[in-house]
Amino acid sequence: MAIGAPCYIHGYSEDEAVRLADQARTLADLLHHDTRYASGSLVLEAGCGTGAQTREIAGRCPGISLVSVDLSAASLRGAKARGLATDLVRGEIAALPFRDESFDHVFVCFVLEHLADPEGALVALRRLLRTGGTITLIEGDHGSCYYHPATPAAASAWGALVSAQQAIGGDPLIGRRLYPLVTGAGFADVAVSLRQVYADESLPGVQDGFVQRTIVPMVEGVREPNAALGLVDSATFEQGLADLRATGGPGGTFCYTFFRATGVKRG
Amino acid sequence: MAIGAPCYIHGYSEDEAVRLADQARTLADLLHHDTRYASGSLVLEAGCGTGAQTREIAGRCPGISLVSVDLSAASLRGAKARGLATDLVRGEIAALPFRDESFDHVFVCFVLEHLADPEGALVALRRLLRTGGTITLIEGDHGSCYYHPATPAAASAWGALVSAQQAIGGDPLIGRRLYPLVTGAGFADVAVSLRQVYADESLPGVQDGFVQRTIVPMVEGVREPNAALGLVDSATFEQGLADLRATGGPGGTFCYTFFRATGVKRG
Repeated sequence: MAIGAPCYIHGYSEDEAVRLADQARTLADLLHHDTRYASGSLVLEAGCGTGAQTREIAGRCPGISLVSVDLSAASLRGAKARGLATDLVRGEIAALPFRDESFDHVFVCFVLEHLADPEGALVALRRLLRTGGTITLIEGDHGSCYYHPATPAAASAWGALVSAQQAIGGDPLIGRRLYPLVTGAGFADVAVSLRQVYADESLPGVQDGFVQRTIVPMVEGVREPNAALGLVDSATFEQGLADLRATGGPGGTFCYTFFRATGVKRG
Repeated sequence: MAIGAPCYIHGYSEDEAVRLADQARTLADLLHHDTRYASGSLVLEAGCGTGAQTREIAGRCPGISLVSVDLSAASLRGAKARGLATDLVRGEIAALPFRDESFDHVFVCFVLEHLADPEGALVALRRLLRTGGTITLIEGDHGSCYYHPATPAAASAWGALVSAQQAIGGDPLIGRRLYPLVTGAGFADVAVSLRQVYADESLPGVQDGFVQRTIVPMVEGVREPNAALGLVDSATFEQGLADLRATGGPGGTFCYTFFRATGVKRG
């Protein structure tokens, strides 16, 4: 993947699309169980990627009209190839081709972390909402991640993931900032709730679905950026990956927290 | 406080007792809402300190007989002075003056983190349980703490808290290890659940009760150990304390996770 371009840190490969679909299935209930839009609502999904979360929202909210936008033509082609039936529009969040006040709700999942100006994006999205409309945001926070055994190599590999995303202008620690960001962008009634994922040996489905098939591939995904940026030497990085895999196996534990924020546009 | 002695890192002062009582009130429901022992049960509380958690358990479980032990005579005197009505016994967890299999349940809260051999303590406590009896453990994990704004000084002050506790043989990151520790000590049906505390401006009670009156005083409590151990220079430590206070005020956010584990003694 290109470093320095305004791009998605995890890349656009087929493997990455599989990782995102796995992640969506494992996390779907945890993240989306309380996202419900009334039938007839016009909902904007800002930053749909290949549609992993789009499907979740569409499936839980029958009768809505969903418009999904993304900056990447390749992601939108992937979404179409996977049969995504919603309207797909290419565009940048800060300059979308929609009239002000034209949406009932806005949904944003795993997107703000990749933007250089997340508050500017929120201000732009607020303009597109009708008065009384809501925004829902879901983001991770890579500083919420801890595990056992906690080895220095694992911490280095995880740190490479964080640094690589920061190097291209993203904020992988954005979850904890959602409340001040959303209030700062002018939304009212802002409420944040945390969704924590925990895995130990008694939860093999979470160890497999989350640690082995979501977290480890995400770190593997920065192998090249890590080398290109000279962050962590290759041997340490590979050892760190092995150590992270071990946290999702016998005797291991793993914790990660997602943040969900909602806000309302007042007149 | 003395460094190097087998002591409680947070000290035994009156301020510390007030901090513990505040902490207990704020966290009581989060930590203890699902701890219920049948009337008539004989319950051992291992490491009762000044009785902050003892009261919670006794209040929620009418009709139980509670025996509370602690290593510190000063803590037991404090517990008595505060009117704690349960049986109080001085002793070390690994060598308590009770017959094997004499308790129905064992309750341990904020204790393992201070022990050099937590698994040994769990094995000793398992001996005191009757077959079919349960153990309940509640511990923090200082690696689960993150906040906004995240300043280097705040990280240094928090790191001093972690290092000071490690320097006297404790493990302030023990929460994530509860599952392997409790299974390793021979308990069956081990289940771990996480209790996350989150504070932002919309939750002033949590900002005050948890950040300002629990977290900040806990870090303040290692001011002297920090100096004695030469961990973080005094100016950085004080700036870090100020920065941590700010995470519990306007625009700030704060996260911390407690771990609760239960296990059963099988024959």
